Amino acid sequence: MARALVLERPRELRLREIDLPQNVGPGDVRIRMDVVGICGSDVHYYRHGRIGPFVVEAPMVLGHEGAGTVVEIGDRVAGLKPGDRVCVEPGIPDFSSRASRIGLYNLDPSLTFWATPPVHGCLTPEVVHPASLCYRLPDGVSQAEGAMVEPLAVGLQAVHKVGVAAGDVALVLGAGPIGILVALSALAAGCARVLIFDPAQEKMRIAAGYDGIVPLAADPAGLAGQVMAATGGWGVDIVFECSGAARAYDEAAPCLRPGGALVCVGMAAGPVPIDMVALMVKEIRVVTVFRYANVYDRAIALMESGKIDVKPLISATYGFEDSVAAFERADAALPQDVKIQITLD
Amino acid sequence: MARALVLERPRELRLREIDLPQNVGPGDVRIRMDVVGICGSDVHYYRHGRIGPFVVEAPMVLGHEGAGTVVEIGDRVAGLKPGDRVCVEPGIPDFSSRASRIGLYNLDPSLTFWATPPVHGCLTPEVVHPASLCYRLPDGVSQAEGAMVEPLAVGLQAVHKVGVAAGDVALVLGAGPIGILVALSALAAGCARVLIFDPAQEKMRIAAGYDGIVPLAADPAGLAGQVMAATGGWGVDIVFECSGAARAYDEAAPCLRPGGALVCVGMAAGPVPIDMVALMVKEIRVVTVFRYANVYDRAIALMESGKIDVKPLISATYGFEDSVAAFERADAALPQDVKIQITLD
Amino acid sequence: MARALVLERPRELRLREIDLPQNVGPGDVRIRMDVVGICGSDVHYYRHGRIGPFVVEAPMVLGHEGAGTVVEIGDRVAGLKPGDRVCVEPGIPDFSSRASRIGLYNLDPSLTFWATPPVHGCLTPEVVHPASLCYRLPDGVSQAEGAMVEPLAVGLQAVHKVGVAAGDVALVLGAGPIGILVALSALAAGCARVLIFDPAQEKMRIAAGYDGIVPLAADPAGLAGQVMAATGGWGVDIVFECSGAARAYDEAAPCLRPGGALVCVGMAAGPVPIDMVALMVKEIRVVTVFRYANVYDRAIALMESGKIDVKPLISATYGFEDSVAAFERADAALPQDVKIQITLD
Amino acid sequence: MARALVLERPRELRLREIDLPQNVGPGDVRIRMDVVGICGSDVHYYRHGRIGPFVVEAPMVLGHEGAGTVVEIGDRVAGLKPGDRVCVEPGIPDFSSRASRIGLYNLDPSLTFWATPPVHGCLTPEVVHPASLCYRLPDGVSQAEGAMVEPLAVGLQAVHKVGVAAGDVALVLGAGPIGILVALSALAAGCARVLIFDPAQEKMRIAAGYDGIVPLAADPAGLAGQVMAATGGWGVDIVFECSGAARAYDEAAPCLRPGGALVCVGMAAGPVPIDMVALMVKEIRVVTVFRYANVYDRAIALMESGKIDVKPLISATYGFEDSVAAFERADAALPQDVKIQITLD
Repeated sequence: MARALVLERPRELRLREIDLPQNVGPGDVRIRMDVVGICGSDVHYYRHGRIGPFVVEAPMVLGHEGAGTVVEIGDRVAGLKPGDRVCVEPGIPDFSSRASRIGLYNLDPSLTFWATPPVHGCLTPEVVHPASLCYRLPDGVSQAEGAMVEPLAVGLQAVHKVGVAAGDVALVLGAGPIGILVALSALAAGCARVLIFDPAQEKMRIAAGYDGIVPLAADPAGLAGQVMAATGGWGVDIVFECSGAARAYDEAAPCLRPGGALVCVGMAAGPVPIDMVALMVKEIRVVTVFRYANVYDRAIALMESGKIDVKPLISATYGFEDSVAAFERADAALPQDVKIQITLD
Repeated sequence: MARALVLERPRELRLREIDLPQNVGPGDVRIRMDVVGICGSDVHYYRHGRIGPFVVEAPMVLGHEGAGTVVEIGDRVAGLKPGDRVCVEPGIPDFSSRASRIGLYNLDPSLTFWATPPVHGCLTPEVVHPASLCYRLPDGVSQAEGAMVEPLAVGLQAVHKVGVAAGDVALVLGAGPIGILVALSALAAGCARVLIFDPAQEKMRIAAGYDGIVPLAADPAGLAGQVMAATGGWGVDIVFECSGAARAYDEAAPCLRPGGALVCVGMAAGPVPIDMVALMVKEIRVVTVFRYANVYDRAIALMESGKIDVKPLISATYGFEDSVAAFERADAALPQDVKIQITLD
Repeated sequence: MARALVLERPRELRLREIDLPQNVGPGDVRIRMDVVGICGSDVHYYRHGRIGPFVVEAPMVLGHEGAGTVVEIGDRVAGLKPGDRVCVEPGIPDFSSRASRIGLYNLDPSLTFWATPPVHGCLTPEVVHPASLCYRLPDGVSQAEGAMVEPLAVGLQAVHKVGVAAGDVALVLGAGPIGILVALSALAAGCARVLIFDPAQEKMRIAAGYDGIVPLAADPAGLAGQVMAATGGWGVDIVFECSGAARAYDEAAPCLRPGGALVCVGMAAGPVPIDMVALMVKEIRVVTVFRYANVYDRAIALMESGKIDVKPLISATYGFEDSVAAFERADAALPQDVKIQITLD
Repeated sequence: MARALVLERPRELRLREIDLPQNVGPGDVRIRMDVVGICGSDVHYYRHGRIGPFVVEAPMVLGHEGAGTVVEIGDRVAGLKPGDRVCVEPGIPDFSSRASRIGLYNLDPSLTFWATPPVHGCLTPEVVHPASLCYRLPDGVSQAEGAMVEPLAVGLQAVHKVGVAAGDVALVLGAGPIGILVALSALAAGCARVLIFDPAQEKMRIAAGYDGIVPLAADPAGLAGQVMAATGGWGVDIVFECSGAARAYDEAAPCLRPGGALVCVGMAAGPVPIDMVALMVKEIRVVTVFRYANVYDRAIALMESGKIDVKPLISATYGFEDSVAAFERADAALPQDVKIQITLD
């Protein structure tokens, strides 16, 4: 039994004791969780009790953006030792599956993922996890930053899959946490500039605080016009759709250069009507991403080198005992909030 | 003035004299047209007088799938001489444009294309064209086959853009001329097998005449089931959408393996509602193609080597004087017809 | 203890009892070996007792090109059952290693490989192996063909890594078993034609028995001239170096088109002097391959569909009790021999 | 007749009148040269009168790294007007050639290039050039920086061809102008860090002035050891060879991770003995580059956005009348000199 933040049912969260697996297998480590960020999907489960086909049918511990400290290691663990600070990749695949072998372990159908029903998350003082999915944090990267590796990994997956070339110009639609982290990833991956648009001015202001991120005017009707003016009439090389809004798909084609790419990061709520011919006449590639694979070490390296600074995105920090309040804050979706984190001690 | 098959207005075709450019510039050749195939787009202009934004506002010569014989060469032409048999790439780009320089000359906005208004096509005894877009036919490839290079190029563009790996299994949706040529291109490009589906049994029968093309049963409801049974539950590597039907987009995701690709070749009539999340959870790439670039020589090489045999797809041949009858036959869309050609002499 | 073909020391082979692991773990299968092919590396160990850093320091069972029949399965094996005919991928990686996770499990430094010291091979009636590395053979593929999957996989790895485009023309240097299997892989992967050269006329004759493989004249001095004549002065898209001869590297650049690729398959005996500037002025990519990953299922699919026929390459078959004679035959390197196989029963 | 810096023969430079083409064709612009950088190849011609097969057989104007101001435009020029500040891509290809059409115009055999015999360079007050090869400089980029676009383009070509992924770690061998510009390109293209080595301490000191560039200790014997220590035993993702030294090729394989890439930028003086097996067992790709294509606009965008700052690399500036002194300084190869420029007015 361990204390944990448990989602009992939609809109009912409790800090309470719950039975969690504690056995440290030969390839596992036990980790004392230090910082856990609240993700949009945590809030979505809190609000609705489900995300598409994933339904919370029994009480479930939330949280999957975690950094902690190793406190115990399994018999066959090499490369980690008690005391190491780590961030944790929350999806556990079968590395010998057919998808994993071709490098796509995030797409292994047998993968289990923290805080995706029926699997418990990490908002609890200690978790057990495969050592091969725990990444040591270097001296220059704090636990709070370590808990940002998970959402940053989504941004890096997007830029890896599409393949940014040095000097590209990109457009990011949506300036929520993922939109901004995608924009930072795109800059780190070689973009000379990243244009960004979000109807919420407050979010745009935060994004525009970064060098290289250029906010577009709040006139979505004129998006393509602004983009063409900014690119000498050629269009951007890549559009990253991070809003989940259906209308964003209409914006992409007119903003893209011939042979450009549209990367789908935001999850739309239902079928999206898409003008395929508008994509075809420019031979636009559409790239989709799902979580991430093989990018945690890269996210850490880019934080360590200073090329990506996530610290301005941590809007508020709550103690573990105030977890419910933290979720209520996240649920309020204040425009000036990007990431809410919870510290455990 | 030259005799030509002229589309006067929708459903009104005439063989008559019309004024056509005859000047052979220093980089041009004059070609005596020998065989011209009728494309679905020709029929579409015949029926509707327009394709999307391209509207026939003045009488226009039809035809863009042509093979002929060089009869005159410009001052600076090297590599071609009178008497050479050639097939002709009908789109003329500015090779120094920004799109052309990165290898995407088919996407150059200034490109002109035969039988796309207001540009005349090649259903006339002689045409003038840049020598750099005329490809010599080797001994083993006839003029009738040469006139099939254009539609085959669409298939090759599709396989080039998606990147077939040897041993892939693909699914082609739609077994019209383009569907079959895409299937043949996919086999030539390395597919071990190509599954195909079309509601028209007659089309499926023609496709299934080729080794390696496997027709699926005429139960579209059960498409994914059949595909999974045929691939050991893994799914196909690539779906080529060649039907232009909106519902085909729903079929793709359930049929694809994790990390697979959907290639859009058929042009849908309007916006297509797409379940983006179904694509995202498998990280499916969507590849779109528009005409072709840099594949004519490859199409000819694959015909010459016998890897692609287009001869069974030539369903009927009409003389130039019977061009109107040829279009009426094409317009009838007989299920057993794949390609109707017109010979000029 | 089991009977096996044991390399005692260079040039000393014996069929004798030896202690081999027999424990079937939860993810393992026990396989009755049916057919084992003799590889050039087996012969190299037989002759020299070593390949580079791999030295046979204790008696070692030879053989790694094997097909057999499942006779027992571990507790957690799904997808295979006793009686299934399989071919076996002989390298066992740690699928959770850093190299494996990015899809390069063949490059995992902890990988063990049959008949690579100190690991025993499969020239013994029964072997135990991870089920995840055993591939069921379909009805149309015999055990003898199944034992050819391993060397064919080398060819497929070469074409996968370089990325053949439909209509490419390739040049293969060296027409030994690997050269011919690379040529067949290149044709299956989309090459319109494969030119081939080997100083041994007998080998060229065998290669030229396949449609699409074009032997060059036995005048190595004139290789580039022949290639340019065959490609209209443009050069081949890809050179596959399968001879291991240093001088082959001099041939590559003059034969390649601008932007072409040189694939290194044959292992040269020592440092090779390479004119890097000749490669640079054409921006030639050099692709190297080591064994294979993720291609066994593709090799089987291409055999099943008839796109690759390896049967003409099986030159002679010996019984298990005649294994030593089989190796002596392989050691003799008769010019008309491609692959020697051993059947067990 | 125009005044120009003329290489009369090895080691004999003169500022004198020479007959240069002055006709502005319909697609050309006339440019007043403002700044010209001295490249290593200029110095090589000055010293030796040749580079490989390119022999200076008649007096030739030097210089190909140029920025200037448009003073006259041809009849068909759009997009440039008198007064525009531009930098100039010095190689003129036939954009309709076979190599150009596939995006490799730098490999078109008919390309002519400034200051490559027998073509004159740009160290003269005015030059005529195709407008399509002149790139407007934005307000934030000076003429001196504009004259750095050409060498920076070499660096960008290297990173484009190899395909840097965000978070990669690279090693650059050689810290001359090209080595440093490659390092800056690699950082801009996504590298988290770039390790660099050069036996000359002064060059290393300049390189290390940039954030993200990490100098290795001056013990070449221990290069692989340092690299492995810096990468947790995994190796770097990419080695950029920018020294032209044969021994650098021995360093690459031990420093690279499995599946890594070696990019050859420096031109070796003769054949380089390469241990191909060392490359093969890690499946290392070798990428070669020759000049550049399609990167000028990207170089300018990265300068404009501040992601690449070339200003610290401009070591000294001479007036046109002191051009000979400028070359003598460049010829002296002072260790603290990176780039010497000449201003014209």
